[in-house]
Formats: sequence, C-alpha cells, structure tokens
Amino acid sequence: MIDYKTALDEIYSTLKNAPNKGKVARYIPELAQIDPNNFAIYLNTLNDGAYGVGHIDTKFSIQSISKVLTLSKAFALKGNAIWERVGVEPSGNPFNHISLLEQEQGIPRNPFINSGAIVIADILVSTLKNPKADFLNYVRELANDNSIDYNYKVAESEKNTGFKNYAITNLLKSFNNLHNDVDEVLDFYFHQCAIEMDCKQLNTTFHLFANQGKCIKNKTHLDISKLKRVNAIMLMCGFYDQAGDFAFDVGLPGKSGVGGGIIAVLPNQYIITTWAPGLNKKGNSLLGLQALELFTTKTQQSIF
Amino acid sequence: MIDYKTALDEIYSTLKNAPNKGKVARYIPELAQIDPNNFAIYLNTLNDGAYGVGHIDTKFSIQSISKVLTLSKAFALKGNAIWERVGVEPSGNPFNHISLLEQEQGIPRNPFINSGAIVIADILVSTLKNPKADFLNYVRELANDNSIDYNYKVAESEKNTGFKNYAITNLLKSFNNLHNDVDEVLDFYFHQCAIEMDCKQLNTTFHLFANQGKCIKNKTHLDISKLKRVNAIMLMCGFYDQAGDFAFDVGLPGKSGVGGGIIAVLPNQYIITTWAPGLNKKGNSLLGLQALELFTTKTQQSIF
Amino acid sequence: MIDYKTALDEIYSTLKNAPNKGKVARYIPELAQIDPNNFAIYLNTLNDGAYGVGHIDTKFSIQSISKVLTLSKAFALKGNAIWERVGVEPSGNPFNHISLLEQEQGIPRNPFINSGAIVIADILVSTLKNPKADFLNYVRELANDNSIDYNYKVAESEKNTGFKNYAITNLLKSFNNLHNDVDEVLDFYFHQCAIEMDCKQLNTTFHLFANQGKCIKNKTHLDISKLKRVNAIMLMCGFYDQAGDFAFDVGLPGKSGVGGGIIAVLPNQYIITTWAPGLNKKGNSLLGLQALELFTTKTQQSIF
Amino acid sequence: MIDYKTALDEIYSTLKNAPNKGKVARYIPELAQIDPNNFAIYLNTLNDGAYGVGHIDTKFSIQSISKVLTLSKAFALKGNAIWERVGVEPSGNPFNHISLLEQEQGIPRNPFINSGAIVIADILVSTLKNPKADFLNYVRELANDNSIDYNYKVAESEKNTGFKNYAITNLLKSFNNLHNDVDEVLDFYFHQCAIEMDCKQLNTTFHLFANQGKCIKNKTHLDISKLKRVNAIMLMCGFYDQAGDFAFDVGLPGKSGVGGGIIAVLPNQYIITTWAPGLNKKGNSLLGLQALELFTTKTQQSIF
Repeated sequence: MIDYKTALDEIYSTLKNAPNKGKVARYIPELAQIDPNNFAIYLNTLNDGAYGVGHIDTKFSIQSISKVLTLSKAFALKGNAIWERVGVEPSGNPFNHISLLEQEQGIPRNPFINSGAIVIADILVSTLKNPKADFLNYVRELANDNSIDYNYKVAESEKNTGFKNYAITNLLKSFNNLHNDVDEVLDFYFHQCAIEMDCKQLNTTFHLFANQGKCIKNKTHLDISKLKRVNAIMLMCGFYDQAGDFAFDVGLPGKSGVGGGIIAVLPNQYIITTWAPGLNKKGNSLLGLQALELFTTKTQQSIF
Repeated sequence: MIDYKTALDEIYSTLKNAPNKGKVARYIPELAQIDPNNFAIYLNTLNDGAYGVGHIDTKFSIQSISKVLTLSKAFALKGNAIWERVGVEPSGNPFNHISLLEQEQGIPRNPFINSGAIVIADILVSTLKNPKADFLNYVRELANDNSIDYNYKVAESEKNTGFKNYAITNLLKSFNNLHNDVDEVLDFYFHQCAIEMDCKQLNTTFHLFANQGKCIKNKTHLDISKLKRVNAIMLMCGFYDQAGDFAFDVGLPGKSGVGGGIIAVLPNQYIITTWAPGLNKKGNSLLGLQALELFTTKTQQSIF
Repeated sequence: MIDYKTALDEIYSTLKNAPNKGKVARYIPELAQIDPNNFAIYLNTLNDGAYGVGHIDTKFSIQSISKVLTLSKAFALKGNAIWERVGVEPSGNPFNHISLLEQEQGIPRNPFINSGAIVIADILVSTLKNPKADFLNYVRELANDNSIDYNYKVAESEKNTGFKNYAITNLLKSFNNLHNDVDEVLDFYFHQCAIEMDCKQLNTTFHLFANQGKCIKNKTHLDISKLKRVNAIMLMCGFYDQAGDFAFDVGLPGKSGVGGGIIAVLPNQYIITTWAPGLNKKGNSLLGLQALELFTTKTQQSIF
Repeated sequence: MIDYKTALDEIYSTLKNAPNKGKVARYIPELAQIDPNNFAIYLNTLNDGAYGVGHIDTKFSIQSISKVLTLSKAFALKGNAIWERVGVEPSGNPFNHISLLEQEQGIPRNPFINSGAIVIADILVSTLKNPKADFLNYVRELANDNSIDYNYKVAESEKNTGFKNYAITNLLKSFNNLHNDVDEVLDFYFHQCAIEMDCKQLNTTFHLFANQGKCIKNKTHLDISKLKRVNAIMLMCGFYDQAGDFAFDVGLPGKSGVGGGIIAVLPNQYIITTWAPGLNKKGNSLLGLQALELFTTKTQQSIF
C-alpha cells in the first residue's frame, strides 16, 4: 500500500497519454466540442489534506452527477415519501429504460436513471419556491462557492434535442407520476444537468457523502440514516448497467456524468473526483474508471 | 347457410339486450359520455343490396379505423417507400408498444399500432399541401359525402390528455423517424382519429377494400397489388393483440376503433360495419366482435 | 392474369438459377447435407388438374409443416379444449420464444411456435393409444400413401442436439402445462418433424385445407368451422416473425419448415407446395417464398 | 449506538413473536415441513467475541448461500477466466431470468442467479477431480468442521421437481455455455444447495469474507483483490431483485437462501447469520431482513 499522493501521481502519469481516451458525448451539441485530452483527478481526505493532478481548475458540465444532489435535496425535504414514486433497485439494462418504465407502470427503477431523476425533479418543482434558484443556492452552499452557475447554453441545447427525455416525461405523465407540466419539469431538469464546476468545486460539493452528511462547513444536510441510503443507491445504480463492474473493479459508491466527470467516496475517509471527457460505450468516462480502479488497487482500500 | 338479411335480423335481436355490453372508453373524456346501448350493423354487398339494423344513422368517432384510410392515402401517394419507416408484422403485445418501439429502434411494427400510424401521419404531413383539409377531402370523396367532418372537441380533448401519444412521437423523433414537429404531426393525428361518421357513411367509405380498390363511384384509389396488401395488414394487425382471435373467430380483414366501430370486408362480396360503444378488455367493441363472429358463422363465408 | 401452368413454368425458369439460394439449415446435422440446388413446385387444383416442376419426387424432411397436421389431429380429437393450453395469437419476435413463454406463464402464444407444438404433441401423447404409430397412420391416410415414414436418423439427430427444445419442454413442465414426461413428449415431437415426403405427397396430404376439411378420398377430417380456424392460424402464425410479410407478399394461409418446404392453400381452389432447402435469415425457404409471391402476383389471386 | 450483544437481545425479543413470519418455501417438498417459528441470529466479531440468540444449533438447508462458496472456489481455482462465461451485473427482475439468459445469449448476468450458479457448477465439475466430495471438503475446511454434509433427500427432491433448473441448464447448453452433461452439472448443483448447517457453522464458514480472505484457521482462501470482488457481487446481486432494498436498508454484503438463512459481513469487523424459514414475496427470509435492518440501524455501522 502506498500513500495517496504517490498513487495519484503514478496514475496520472500512466494514463495521461493513454492511446484510447474514449469518445466525447455527441448527442448534446455543446458538449461535443470539449477537448478529449482534458484529464484531472482531485482527492480530498477528511483528515489528511487534499491533492490534485491535471486540469483541476477547468469547468465542465456535471450532467448526471447532479442527480445525487437533487435526490439529496428531495430526500431531506420530503423523507421516505419519495420512495412511493421511485424505486431503489438497479435497472439492469441500458437499452430498455423506457421499456422498463412502461412495464413497471410509471414507477422508475431508481433515482439515477433519467426517468427517476425526472420524478425527483418534479418533486423539487412542487416543493421549492423558486426551483431553479433555490436548487442552485443549495449547490452553492454545499460547495461553499457562490460563483457556481448553470451553463444556460447547454440547458438550451438539451431542450432542443432531448426528445427521449420528452418521451420519458410524457410517459410518466400518462401514468400519473408527474404532478407538474412536462415543459416546466424538463426546464428544471435540463438546468440541473447543465451546472458547471471544476474538479475542486465538485469534490467539495460532495464532502457530505464521505462525512456522515455534514458539508465542508460542518452543517448537517442529511442525517446518517439518509446519508447511508444515498450512498447505497450510488453504489447500486450510479453507473447504469456498469454498476456491477464499478462495484467489482473500484468498490466505492460513486456517480458518473456524460460530461466526463465521476465522483466517488470512501465513507469517513475521502472524496475523489475525476474528469476525462472521453466516454466508453456505456457512457462512463473511460480514463476516469481506469483511474479509480488503479487508485483503490494501489491503496488497497474500498468499502469491501 | 342463411341469407344476409335474416342473419342480420337474428344477430341484432340476439345481441341488442345482451347483459354485458362492455365498457365505454374513458380515457378520452368526450367519448366517455356515449350511451353504451347504441348498437348498429350495416352491410353493403357488391351485387346484392344493402341492409341495416339499429342506430345506423347515429354518428360516432371512428378513431383508429381512420388508420386504414391514412395508410391507403400514404401508400397510394408514396408507394413502397413507406415500408422503410414502418413494418407489416403483428405486434404481439398491447402492453409494450413503447417497449417494442425502443427495442426496434424507432421502426414501428406496423401502421395500425399508434406509433406506426403516427409515422404514416408524418408522411402525410410532409406530402399533402394542406394536410388536414386534403385528408378530409379524400375521406369525403371515398364516402361520396361532403358533410363528413372532424369533431374538433374530440381532437382538442385528445390533445390535452394524450400523453402516451406525445411520448411515442417524441421517441420516434429521437430515433429520427419523424420528419416534422411533434406538435404538428399529433395535431393531424388527433384530427384524423376525431372524424365522425355513422355506420352507413363508414361502410360506403370502405367500399374500395371489398371492390378491388375502386370506391363507390368506381374510381380506383388503390391498385390491386396495394389493395390486397392493405387487406392483409388489416387481417394481421387490425385488432392489436386480439388479431389472432379475430382471424380465428371471424376470418375477415377488419379494423376496430375505441369509439366502438368495426369495419370488415369479404373481398369481392361485401363490406360490413358494426357500432357498439362498449369495449372488451383489449379495447375492441364487445358486441361488434360477437356480431361479426355470428355473421360469418351463420353465413358460412370467410376468407378461409 | 395467366393460367397456372404457364405461371409455374415461368417462375421455375426465373428462379432455378437464382444466384442467392439461401443457406441450408445447419443446426440439424442430418439436414446440413442436402443439396441447395434442389427446387420444386407442385400445384393441385380442386377442379383443374395438377402441375409440377423440378424435383417433385425427391423426399425431404417436412419438419415444422408437421405442426399443422398434429394441430388438426388434436383439434379434431379434443375440440376447443386445446385452446386452454395454447393461444392463437402471432408471436411477434423470433428471438424471444422462451422469454414469451416465461412471461405468459407457460401458455404458448400459438401452436406453430415450438412451445405450442410441443403442447399439442403432449395432448396427442395423452390421447393416442400408440402415439407415433397412430399419428403416422393419420398422415398416411391423408396422403393416401402407406409408404410415408419417419426418418429415424433425423429424429435421433435432433434428440442429441435439440437442447433448446429440452429447455422449452422443461419450462412448460415447470408451469404445469405438460402432462407427460419430457423425454416421451420430445421423442414424439422429434419424430413428427422427421416425417419425409416429396412435394406430391405433401401436396396431397394438405388437400383437406383447400377442400373444406375433406381429404383426397373425400373423407371429412375437420368440420368447416375447425378448418377455417386452422387456416386462420396458418395465416397468422405460419411463418414465425415473417407471418406479416407472407400475408403481405403472398396472401395465402401457409406453413414453412426448416427442411425447405412450404405449403399454401387458396381455399376452394388449390394447394401449392414448394421445396428449396436454402433458407433466409428468418428460417423460411428463400426460393419458396419468392416462388409463391410470383405465383399470386402472376395469377392475381389470393384470399385478399 | 449500543453494543452488539444488547442489540441482538433487543432484536430477538422484538421479532421472535412477530405476527407475520412469512411463508416457508413450498416448491421443494423437503423444505415445506420446516417449522416457521425457528429463529436465530449469530454474530462473530473478528476481535470482540461471538453472540447468538435463538435456535442457533438447528441445522437448515443453506440453498443459494452455497453459491458464494462455489463462486469463491471457482474464482480461486480459475481466476478471471470465469468472467468470460458469467457477468457481474445485477439482474433487475426476478420473473425474467430465463428471458435474460435468452436475450444475452447464454451469458448469465451474475453468478448468484440460478443460471450463473449453474455455470459456476459446470466450471467446478470440469475442474475438480471428485466434484461433490472435493467441494464438501472445501466447505468443511472453511467451517473447520468435518461433520458438515449434504442432505441427500433434499438433493433428490430437487432433482425430481426442478424443471425450471433443467430448462435453464439446457438453454445454457444450447448456447454452448455448459461444457458437461446437463444431468451431471445439475446433480452437483442440487447437492451444493442441499448442504446443511446450523447458524454457528455457517457463520464460521463465512469468516474469510470479513477477514480479508483468511478462514477461521487463518489460511488464505482468496487474495484481497478477489475477496473484495466477491463481496461486491454479494452486495450487488445477493438478494435477487431485492438487492437494492438490502443495500438501502441494511448496507452490508450478504446472501440469502430459500431455506431461510442469510449471511452478511461488515469487512474487518464481523460476520452475522440469521435463520428464519418464513420468506417474503421475493424469496428472502422475512424476519432475517428485519433483524439485519434493525442491527445496522441500532449499531450505526455499515459499509456506507
């Protein structure tokens, strides 16, 4: 076992010139222009300092990583009532998310597939006074950084091309599992996905998930019982149909986004963020996964 | 074997007081108010006169029966090119129409499930100059009756509640199998379904399907090769997941609508229309199916 | 429209040297050795003589075509009771026959997919005194030819390699939709598929399906009501997931087998048999399908 | 937070008289006779002693819990080569295990659904000299107890009624993912499931999963890298389609069996075993799940 800093340095030098860096997501025009050579890892320990390598100050679109934050906010606000509208089981397959939703009559399998995240968005639209502003404030508070903002061009871009999300949301509506208007909920959802942060900001934002529910300012945002449940859902469902692989290879609760970011936590020890915009076939950051697998192998630590 | 008139009279008196008349469709508010005691059968032979029993002059919403007419128009206009965008196979299951569309990557199984009919609507929106007006004129010409019209309240009603159709259409769009705007295509689609006719008008409109493609005024609207193919699709796909039952019990090409209408043809012999608004669990007119099964049993004629 | 003989001659000369003749079935070792250049068409009209072209006297394995004969025997013996154990709806997809059986809890979709044919075999094993001998006698009587027999090597070949059929039959047993032993039912089933006939014999055997249920010796084997239902099932389900195509392109009730045979009937007019061992990707004879499509196009006759 | 002993005592007294104890598995006749009032919990810490409550000395059939042991043996013997024949992803649904296997062409989703465990059994049948004897010796060594044995009546009982397992195994064979004979592999599989142990024995057998791969006698049976992977698969796949619930409610890697047993581990801390033969609708021990949820709640410890 080696120390964290040495591990990060070794991993960075091993991977930064990897011949295959995956493919940048093309279905969102605004994301298709990102340079696939960006690569960063940032680690923050609870007791032992922080280390970063690579482009740790470059902002990127956090995309689906935002689903952990909306879930946490909705869970804190509404408690177990949210589980009447969305499950906590892994979804198994990627290709049939809409099929699953139809078969299971409008109850999404979990809050991290799009349909489930849209139900959570609907709950926040119903509950928050000014949904987009209030949620942004929540994220800024977790990050302890008021400069964090939505990228409005990315949100607009998704609004014009996100037909599959419109399909999902209308299907939820047809099953009476959407309380607000389709357009209003998707406007919120496309914005939450379009939040921009750099690795350091994102890492700080996720401090509470390693720290028993307390953010960097030591304020409790989730009680321990809820916190361990959100971490469990991250492990079970955080990487779509590659969740099993991630648990098997890395062994940490985590969440990926098509912007190329991944966050993961070792409870009571550390938060780690990677960013590499090239994705594998399952839509997860290729170098990010490799970096995290190397990290838990080299450090011989995981939740298992 | 008995003559047609006697058969119709016997069937009408047997069924008109049936204790179970099925349930009127509730998902379209405008249709939910129809009196389930309405019941009519109308038969028009090519060589042997016409007979009707019951409420043959009451108008009803033809709904999915319109899909045969849009298919015929699109097939006549565009020929076999339409089969690149929609198949001709039965769909098997009702509950998974959206699942099927997702699995088969946006190519609907056939033109009579909603997704397929929406693709056909998209073709007509692309091809016709004034889609709604032009299609209405086509129907009026087939029916030889300029009084036929859309029921605009029914169309509006579907527009406000048809979330599943919005889901389907957005999914088609996400697979690049919709060339026009979602709202524009659905506006056309909701109107085609909202055409109103009585049994006599509907029966006349379908004259061409028993008469080698020639309408009541003897004008050819489909050549023989196309006509037999539309009839084949009616047989294979006209009653959703009850298509096998209908072929098995009745043995005629036909099409049902949730307004309670059914049309069927014995090629070169007759066209028959039934209307009874109460539906069975599969969404087909309960008394209509029973009437047609009795009719082909009593007359010992079918395509088999 | 041209006369039948001219049509057959033209079709034979057009297709006999076709560059693509499909691929002979390989999964049954005994069938893999058949020469793909075999090609025959045989037509028998009810009132207008018989015509044949090509290898009409060469025997081949009728395979799934036998399912029509076992269905007819079981339907004649047990009546509508058989429909409690098997449906009459098309199955939609090829790749998920076992999935469908699992989803629909052991009730096969129709008697022409393997699971349904195995249930019919189970019914015959329960009902016939000496199942294999009695069924062979039934076929010999229909064909008016006592030389017809099982090919025991083909039956044995399937017994050693038919693991998917063992899977299906055990699944039926787990759902209590198999009353006899798995091995006993499959022994019967593998034999029924291994019946050998030439085109002329097969054509005669199917005489009853064009002749209102009466065989070549004018004995009634199915009453009219049952006969039209078996023909309906042939149309809806006779070509697996290509049933819609066959209805669309050919427009006749029919049934194919992986031995390369196809039979089809125009009720009250004729029976037609084709044999060409090369199959398309859906497991139906490639030249056979083309020949039948040309035949109904040239003669401008079909059930539609 | 309270100490372990107090927690166990409280849980036992809370649950032992629970009005709803679930239903004993009926599909295996030998298991149907077990008294549903049996209830036991046994905890063994690595550093802090052992505690037990209830019927901790009564033997029961470990059933699917054995899948962890066969996986560990096969993984130790063959390394990563086993992952060419079975995946590590959760399966999502219970009702479609056979469907999944068909869709994914014979590669089981993970080693804890029956199809995956049968592939692992096939690997052991190919690799071990005397499969049943050698595997029993492996279990005895882990348990440090040579009295452990198969219950041959239970194994025989499954052999006569396990049609679904025969279906699965034949399907694997049809996809060339079974190297040995169906009957030989199932004979091994039915025996592994029929191992009998009491809670104390089972708890000792699983010592290595909490102790970095070392058994109670401190011998290494799995290296750390393999050990964490087996624990990850337990968490992701150990409770069928209730895996998400278990991670959410309990938060420990674990495995259940239809005999009513559950084992779970907190790595580097403890192994806990529960036994209560009444099952919930998903086939997992009802009281066992409740006991484990209470235990991690009261002790405020889990992997998250």
